[in-house]
Amino acid sequence: MAAACRLCYSASDIDAIREAIDDQSAARMIGKVLKLGHLSVLEHASFTFAIEGISRACSHQLVRHRIASFSQQSQRYVKMSECEFMLPPSIQERPEAVERFNGLMDDLQAEYNALLEDGVAAEDARYVLPNAAETKVIMTANARSLLNFLELRLCTRAQWEIRELAGLMLDKVREVAPNVFKNAGPTCDTKGYCPEGEMSCGRISNQ
Amino acid sequence: MAAACRLCYSASDIDAIREAIDDQSAARMIGKVLKLGHLSVLEHASFTFAIEGISRACSHQLVRHRIASFSQQSQRYVKMSECEFMLPPSIQERPEAVERFNGLMDDLQAEYNALLEDGVAAEDARYVLPNAAETKVIMTANARSLLNFLELRLCTRAQWEIRELAGLMLDKVREVAPNVFKNAGPTCDTKGYCPEGEMSCGRISNQ
Amino acid sequence: MAAACRLCYSASDIDAIREAIDDQSAARMIGKVLKLGHLSVLEHASFTFAIEGISRACSHQLVRHRIASFSQQSQRYVKMSECEFMLPPSIQERPEAVERFNGLMDDLQAEYNALLEDGVAAEDARYVLPNAAETKVIMTANARSLLNFLELRLCTRAQWEIRELAGLMLDKVREVAPNVFKNAGPTCDTKGYCPEGEMSCGRISNQ
Amino acid sequence: MAAACRLCYSASDIDAIREAIDDQSAARMIGKVLKLGHLSVLEHASFTFAIEGISRACSHQLVRHRIASFSQQSQRYVKMSECEFMLPPSIQERPEAVERFNGLMDDLQAEYNALLEDGVAAEDARYVLPNAAETKVIMTANARSLLNFLELRLCTRAQWEIRELAGLMLDKVREVAPNVFKNAGPTCDTKGYCPEGEMSCGRISNQ
Repeated sequence: MAAACRLCYSASDIDAIREAIDDQSAARMIGKVLKLGHLSVLEHASFTFAIEGISRACSHQLVRHRIASFSQQSQRYVKMSECEFMLPPSIQERPEAVERFNGLMDDLQAEYNALLEDGVAAEDARYVLPNAAETKVIMTANARSLLNFLELRLCTRAQWEIRELAGLMLDKVREVAPNVFKNAGPTCDTKGYCPEGEMSCGRISNQ
Repeated sequence: MAAACRLCYSASDIDAIREAIDDQSAARMIGKVLKLGHLSVLEHASFTFAIEGISRACSHQLVRHRIASFSQQSQRYVKMSECEFMLPPSIQERPEAVERFNGLMDDLQAEYNALLEDGVAAEDARYVLPNAAETKVIMTANARSLLNFLELRLCTRAQWEIRELAGLMLDKVREVAPNVFKNAGPTCDTKGYCPEGEMSCGRISNQ
Repeated sequence: MAAACRLCYSASDIDAIREAIDDQSAARMIGKVLKLGHLSVLEHASFTFAIEGISRACSHQLVRHRIASFSQQSQRYVKMSECEFMLPPSIQERPEAVERFNGLMDDLQAEYNALLEDGVAAEDARYVLPNAAETKVIMTANARSLLNFLELRLCTRAQWEIRELAGLMLDKVREVAPNVFKNAGPTCDTKGYCPEGEMSCGRISNQ
Repeated sequence: MAAACRLCYSASDIDAIREAIDDQSAARMIGKVLKLGHLSVLEHASFTFAIEGISRACSHQLVRHRIASFSQQSQRYVKMSECEFMLPPSIQERPEAVERFNGLMDDLQAEYNALLEDGVAAEDARYVLPNAAETKVIMTANARSLLNFLELRLCTRAQWEIRELAGLMLDKVREVAPNVFKNAGPTCDTKGYCPEGEMSCGRISNQ
């Protein structure tokens, strides 16, 4: 990324450019492109995530990020005979609701299995599976797209599950690329303003 | 599209190019780019669809087409208190299964409503909603991307619901842009071969 | 665009949504998505431009916008035997430089023609053609991508020729879609800040 | 890539999937997705190239591949006071043309330098630089996009310079990812047909 950054403004060969870059100058250059918003050089690095234990509600939001690549466990081809179900915290804190929720998931699973036994294909039996059903995804995105993803999904207005996922992803990429991701997050943290207007969470005052 | 096609190979001004094109020459040029696979000129026309009465199972496949734009009814913000549920034909033809399916949908809807009454937000109550739940989408795609969509989703191996949707979409675009879409469809129809290998439906033999 | 905007938050059918929208409510909704940065609904409208009288220096920048479609007059296939050449204002204001520039363009054109006469193909003869050589492009982009293009290319730090082009394009789209484009432009005008840091032109102070 | 491939069809955890894959099964799976055209899993691997010694004629074609990332030496910011010029083979084999070509390049370089001395900015002086001018690019693309690039640009109908570049890139990626790239190339080699119709080079007969 740093070499790509320097190439744009240099008459040197790429080998010479790469040799002249050390950790410190790389950090300085990455810091500068982040500040100026010249983010295209960040596209040269990409990151692949193995994601499990998320709901289909969450994955439906995840795959809406179009500058990224996804391979998802298929409900058409994989028989979900022992499906896990994700429980939202707001339900978890209501014991009666939890009991009803779990009972319902048992009924759904039983009906799914019954449909398979009746000879219905998995791709049709899945119509009874809920948004809570667990799914697995392998996702790849470049650093620029990932910063955009983190900006949107770490906002307090993002849905709790994808926000939690985004937090875990940020922890991972910060370890391997701290220069790029140390300040990643919603615009209130990174740029000092909130675009959400009347829907703002109020973390920062707006003008 | 025809003007864009001619521009690449002409020394004329664009106005002169446009004036020289009539319906017949446009049809001939579009036919030629389709045959040669020089599809980029088809990107200059785009089509917008109002899609209703599809399941979330179907929309999850739909939004995976990344060279397209989607606005979808949000289960986070819209209360699905009177949700419609899509019934797969393979279940429909099994009367007992239909009865169980409908009963289950009633239970799901009741639980969804109960969660809302308990004070759970719609974005969390929706975890109990099934893939069968109806959704609405406004989708825009250019002609090139649309041809690719139709090629993949009109294949007999595509899932029945998105295949049905693709068929309806093709009917609509054929009306307004017959030159582009008259031969759209799976590769067995358009190119005389099947890429699906051992998973082929066998419509055409695949030496 | 307004219907797509409303669909996300409404339980109504799309027909009912469209009927309920009038010019005033559409303007209000578009204004709101622009303010909140919820720009995806703007992807449903796209705009096609016939662009002539720009240099290859300009088109090389233009085609770097990847969320857009381009059909360009080909120097491989079109014989540029009577090429126009774009003269930068900074050269135009130096009479001696203009004379030398014009002489050089005559030499280039003569050599190009000589190479063709020698039997060299147009695709190789063009190696002597300069960045100043005129080109023609048909370009299509959706409103969201176009706003991004205008933000970047109407900045005073953009190169003069593409900035001039962006200004002409903005005039055109403002006529047909004033709600979307009335406030389009660089961030200093639209958002009150400049991301260019030490390279800022100073139009607005950058605390 | 192999893990992503298997995930779609498996009920296992991703760790278990990865452990179960060895070199042989990975090769088999990659071979299968290539044959079936299920190429999305190939997007999880990306490749970055340092490209030098190509002309601006070549780079103008290169950057038209939109599913890729480019950082290019800028003629706006870098002073090309000692520019290299690429000589097409068809000119090289005509000694008189070479002499004229070289003379012209000397004149162009002299005028470029004179403009800089006159106080004209590099971004305007470059209008006299020819398509032959050397440029440098750092390019990143994922394996799927790269296969598409190689298919188009290794065709005998592609322009000689980008075809040469594509050949060198293929050599490099074949070394590190032979399973993916061992059969990369134009459709005549990989799929046994030519889409170019009447413009076909005739390498294979096109009944």
